[in-house]
Amino acid sequence: MNAEIIAVGSELLLGQIVNTNARFLSQQLAEHGINVYYHTVVGDNDKRLKGVIESAEQRSNLIIFTGGLGPTKDDLTKETISRHIGKKLVFDEEALVSIKQYFARTGREMTENNKKQALVIEGSDVLPNDHGMAPGMVITVQGITYILLPGPPKEMEPMFLEYGIKSILSKMDKHERIESKVLRFFGIGEAALETEIEDLIEKQQNPTIAPLAADGEVTLRITAKHTSREICENMIAVVEEEILERVGQFHYGNDQTSLMKELVRELTARNIKIASAESLTGGMFQENLTAIPGAGKIFMSGIVSYTNEAKAKLLNVKRETIEKHGVVSEQCATEMAENVRSILDADAGISFTGVAGPEELEGNPVGTVYIGISFRDSEPKSFKLNFSGSREQNRVRSVKYGCYYLLRELAARK
Amino acid sequence: MNAEIIAVGSELLLGQIVNTNARFLSQQLAEHGINVYYHTVVGDNDKRLKGVIESAEQRSNLIIFTGGLGPTKDDLTKETISRHIGKKLVFDEEALVSIKQYFARTGREMTENNKKQALVIEGSDVLPNDHGMAPGMVITVQGITYILLPGPPKEMEPMFLEYGIKSILSKMDKHERIESKVLRFFGIGEAALETEIEDLIEKQQNPTIAPLAADGEVTLRITAKHTSREICENMIAVVEEEILERVGQFHYGNDQTSLMKELVRELTARNIKIASAESLTGGMFQENLTAIPGAGKIFMSGIVSYTNEAKAKLLNVKRETIEKHGVVSEQCATEMAENVRSILDADAGISFTGVAGPEELEGNPVGTVYIGISFRDSEPKSFKLNFSGSREQNRVRSVKYGCYYLLRELAARK
Repeated sequence: MNAEIIAVGSELLLGQIVNTNARFLSQQLAEHGINVYYHTVVGDNDKRLKGVIESAEQRSNLIIFTGGLGPTKDDLTKETISRHIGKKLVFDEEALVSIKQYFARTGREMTENNKKQALVIEGSDVLPNDHGMAPGMVITVQGITYILLPGPPKEMEPMFLEYGIKSILSKMDKHERIESKVLRFFGIGEAALETEIEDLIEKQQNPTIAPLAADGEVTLRITAKHTSREICENMIAVVEEEILERVGQFHYGNDQTSLMKELVRELTARNIKIASAESLTGGMFQENLTAIPGAGKIFMSGIVSYTNEAKAKLLNVKRETIEKHGVVSEQCATEMAENVRSILDADAGISFTGVAGPEELEGNPVGTVYIGISFRDSEPKSFKLNFSGSREQNRVRSVKYGCYYLLRELAARK
Repeated sequence: MNAEIIAVGSELLLGQIVNTNARFLSQQLAEHGINVYYHTVVGDNDKRLKGVIESAEQRSNLIIFTGGLGPTKDDLTKETISRHIGKKLVFDEEALVSIKQYFARTGREMTENNKKQALVIEGSDVLPNDHGMAPGMVITVQGITYILLPGPPKEMEPMFLEYGIKSILSKMDKHERIESKVLRFFGIGEAALETEIEDLIEKQQNPTIAPLAADGEVTLRITAKHTSREICENMIAVVEEEILERVGQFHYGNDQTSLMKELVRELTARNIKIASAESLTGGMFQENLTAIPGAGKIFMSGIVSYTNEAKAKLLNVKRETIEKHGVVSEQCATEMAENVRSILDADAGISFTGVAGPEELEGNPVGTVYIGISFRDSEPKSFKLNFSGSREQNRVRSVKYGCYYLLRELAARK
């Protein structure tokens, strides 16, 4: 089965929104072993849409449309397709009831326009819209399956997962699956990582290995293709083992995890309670930490000591330390970490002080960062970093390094 | 000039990355009045790429390619195009020097593969790559202009802004411009806003009015088309005035601003120093605030009081308040705001306490939030909110409402 995805909407061509639907559908189709060879975006225009459909029919037997199912005159996807394949539009009773209920529930007036959303292509399987008004449709004509989905991702994604993919799979003979696993690395650059596994990347065919770098992290996506899920997983495991033998010391987790999630998991598992004192990061460490449900079990609160006065008053950093070494210093970082830990009676303390930019501070260049780490039962220590990014990048990387150092220290204390 | 954008890369068809390049280029082209009628994504495959080029040539006279200029065998964009238009690939001396310098600078070994990146289409204008190795190219053959740009956005975007757009504009006769302005609203839902201006949206042609909702905010993009920038701006101003007459009370800013940026601007202009105490938001207000360069001038630091102990110990919230009213209460919010302000000797204080979710707290349902606001010279007050989103949405909206209430209080104190 060869698929292509056609997004209909002038807002995409004007650059007002990005085509995340194509990405979502491609991921889903890949996971089920369906090849996607083209994405197309076309405006709300009958003639151009028709031209795009004709091209697609020459090369694919599964054509998925997103967008253009709304109530306004602009929306013409189902009108154009139904004319093109020679089918009528008819009212779908269930969709009409569901639209009426929606208006009754929200107390809004239903207009004639809205009724148009209940029109479906005659003979199609109707996909219910549990998060909006426009139903989806699936119809096969002369060996080509057309799937129409709404444009808003919050309607399209659940509709596809709940109803769309089943409809597609029911039309397939065999299932060649695509399974993939993402290995996550920190503390090593993309180039250095690639160099270590260059021969593996070069000989790759199945599974493939795809490196990607973002925000100071590097990931490797291993993708295997086979009809059996188990065989896919075994193929991935073999490559994974080879990779980790070489660069395992930088590997911190897989798939959807993050450094912060790993940190929260580790602290929770060992019941280690943490407090935090932040200067240049302005609360980002604590915000990231508390973004994770259940973080309350191990987070004892913290202080955002942005000014020198706050460092002295809230964190009891010695005036002498600030005068002698400055706030961007190893001494200030260790005092902040130690003091926030003891003030809040926590088991561990972490601190961030440095120069996010754009201006330098106390003669320290932008990107100079000290991270302090303190545990109840040992001497506090600090780590110095030099970043060269923007203010935001320097802050984000500081927080990631904070997680990384804490994880490393926790591992050493096992 | 009719344009289309072709992205080359199998990673897009696998859903590993999203095609932000098409969005960026579309926005840029729209701003210069160039119509974009199609986006296409095709894999790293000679035959399919050739097919896509042939279709594009039937309907567009400006074809912009992104991706496939890298050093590996997969990368075949310039190879396929040069063959298709009957031109040779030749070494560009400047690009070769710049690649050699890159390797000298990073101390890495240069491979033969990398030299391939200095190959350009004979007779093309070469666009320097200031952020990577692969140069861009512009060539016009039989009335069709082909532009080749690298795939990574951090290379492609500056190359296009610096060199690409100039090259395109030099080929255009007249400049029909597209100018747009985004009006930002808070405190009103998308549906309610649309209802207020429904007649304006319906009669729209030039300028157009496009509403978009995200994270509790609603924006209206007004877009005008004309050869004269001044006339565009006047057309926009007329529509803007009509809109603001009706819903001006919810309007807080235009274009790239945010509630937080407006807040920092206002506090800075009036030299009002602020402190903050956060519970459910876990530091997000302070993180957002300090993300803005120069916020240090008005931010006096703050406290992330996630636990009851921290509220008592760091913020001096009365034990009695917590026992009698709970931490999710008007009383706790006002005490937190008042106390953090006085502890840090700030002019204004803001606090956030509530239930982000997923679990309820003290019998309060998820989404219950109190925001406290205190000024040096008046009684503190608090605002109650009920959200129905996810943990993250509830936190994000709390911070936005915090900014919104502060801006409103500041306006009332003028």
